[in-house]
Amino acid sequence: MRATYLHGEGDIRLTDTPQPEIEHPTDAIVRVTAACVCGSDLWGYRGARGGEARRIGHEFVGVVEEVGAEVRTLRAGDFVIAPFVVSDGTCGPCRDGVQTSCVNGGAWGSTSRAGERLDGAQAQWVRAPFADGTLVATPVTPADSLVPALLSLSDVMGTGHHAAVSAGVSPGDTAVVVGDGAVGLCAVLAATRLGAERVIAMSRHADRQRLATRFGATDIVATRGDEGVAEVAELLGGRGADAVLECVGTKESMRQALDSVRPGGRVGYVGVPAGGPELPIGQMFSNNIAVAGGVAPVRHYLDALLADVLDGKLDPGPVFDSEYPLERVADAYRDMSDRKVIKPLLKP
Amino acid sequence: MRATYLHGEGDIRLTDTPQPEIEHPTDAIVRVTAACVCGSDLWGYRGARGGEARRIGHEFVGVVEEVGAEVRTLRAGDFVIAPFVVSDGTCGPCRDGVQTSCVNGGAWGSTSRAGERLDGAQAQWVRAPFADGTLVATPVTPADSLVPALLSLSDVMGTGHHAAVSAGVSPGDTAVVVGDGAVGLCAVLAATRLGAERVIAMSRHADRQRLATRFGATDIVATRGDEGVAEVAELLGGRGADAVLECVGTKESMRQALDSVRPGGRVGYVGVPAGGPELPIGQMFSNNIAVAGGVAPVRHYLDALLADVLDGKLDPGPVFDSEYPLERVADAYRDMSDRKVIKPLLKP
Repeated sequence: MRATYLHGEGDIRLTDTPQPEIEHPTDAIVRVTAACVCGSDLWGYRGARGGEARRIGHEFVGVVEEVGAEVRTLRAGDFVIAPFVVSDGTCGPCRDGVQTSCVNGGAWGSTSRAGERLDGAQAQWVRAPFADGTLVATPVTPADSLVPALLSLSDVMGTGHHAAVSAGVSPGDTAVVVGDGAVGLCAVLAATRLGAERVIAMSRHADRQRLATRFGATDIVATRGDEGVAEVAELLGGRGADAVLECVGTKESMRQALDSVRPGGRVGYVGVPAGGPELPIGQMFSNNIAVAGGVAPVRHYLDALLADVLDGKLDPGPVFDSEYPLERVADAYRDMSDRKVIKPLLKP
Repeated sequence: MRATYLHGEGDIRLTDTPQPEIEHPTDAIVRVTAACVCGSDLWGYRGARGGEARRIGHEFVGVVEEVGAEVRTLRAGDFVIAPFVVSDGTCGPCRDGVQTSCVNGGAWGSTSRAGERLDGAQAQWVRAPFADGTLVATPVTPADSLVPALLSLSDVMGTGHHAAVSAGVSPGDTAVVVGDGAVGLCAVLAATRLGAERVIAMSRHADRQRLATRFGATDIVATRGDEGVAEVAELLGGRGADAVLECVGTKESMRQALDSVRPGGRVGYVGVPAGGPELPIGQMFSNNIAVAGGVAPVRHYLDALLADVLDGKLDPGPVFDSEYPLERVADAYRDMSDRKVIKPLLKP
């Protein structure tokens, strides 16, 4: 079978690799029916360190082909959604709903905290450890038209939702979303779903502005920095927003978020911190700005979001604006890196 | 009348000063019946910059002597509690319950955001601007025995409560309180009041440990740093706490807090940041640790806490372990600075 390997900077290749097999009785083997490329995959792609080629990809849906003897909740033939992190479902953090901190877990395409190699998911087949704790099966095999929406629950929609939950978005709130990538766009949808009355999307790209509006944004702000802060305040009658959803991860985007929130407001952030390890506590203290969020425990949100997708109440599917056969995975990376596409879906 | 002035490092004096008068129709004149010294007063006391002597003190209760023509909720003779910050009660932040960010407000003994001089409260009389927005009257004149508890609502109890609310303390939670000053001790009481099942007080002083236990602490940890973190984890079965209440404000105490919380847990902080303006966002992100808090909007909490004090359900009064006539204010500062007393009450 074939799997995607990152060999070095800008060097993504589909390579023949052995079919995965059950290694532990809690494993399942999944045939991947759709995967995708994440903004965070591009970090490795753009600035890969040397060393061994590694399997990559952490978002997928597929069909269970085989389960280990101890798997209880899944059987062969089930359609499953895989959160981007493997989790055992039984440890303290898993029980607390923070499966991203699972003591045995880790992201697909890395090594788990328990020291286990985790397959990258931009591939035809994947071995899923802790299948009961990790995978979520749909009640019936979904129509093909639902696949993009279901795939988004693997990461981007759950992550956008985590930004909204962490920012405490409540009915009637005003919300600002910083970042117009796939996660930011899903955050717009999440804030709308949680009842925000005003959702201001900060975006400078016409295609993303259109999708933000389709996802519920009531206003678009195309400026940044102090100018962007002023424009948000003008839209909100001279005030900051109740909630700001930070979906980028740079120092500049966090500053944008902190400067856009009202006293006593909340910043929910999901952008992997890339702009430095620090937050300005003085500004937070004086203005009682709460900062919450982190790596999204997508598994925790999956049941509720899945129910809404299956009920037709939630459709993040359009966040995938392009589709590539897995053979063209290198093109998908290049086009996403060049910002020609928002988020490419891969069909093995 | 006499008022306390800070003249320079270690130089606190009671000085004759003109009786305050109504300056605006929204003012009230209050005869102070009890005031106290705050940990933050000691910063000025210990490291006063040169320049003009200034009135000091921001916590008091007293009796309204006179009100301006536009004051609606108070009348002469009312017993009132003054939050440590003046607030107009009508601006956006005040309506949002963040009176500490009032656009016209400021702390007693400073200059307001509107540019108005605000009297220091370690004095016989005080002019209270925005009396309706700032002061809270008790339904009847309270017994003398209740005065310490009511005075604590002016700052320390409301601030400890803000730490607990910001840390999201809920029934059944495990909580750690970092800091055994008056605020930390009140935070123990607040966490207990909000239903925490375990409240671990970090304290190295026998007198404070006793008061923490009296206020509801189920456990005392006398160690700090990694050793303290390990001891907390041992008490909690190998896990971090659901909620950590940071009541000091140094870099070390914030690190203690962040290292003591479980993945997905919450740090509520009220210690004025003195140890640097930064927070480690990488650690927060990986573990989904929320950080909330800031300068406590005591006014927002006053009605609920006052009701509990008057009902006999809440008694933070013992946090005052000493009492000085206002004439001995210099002794009160010295003894608190030398940690001979936890928190001195001043009787004008």
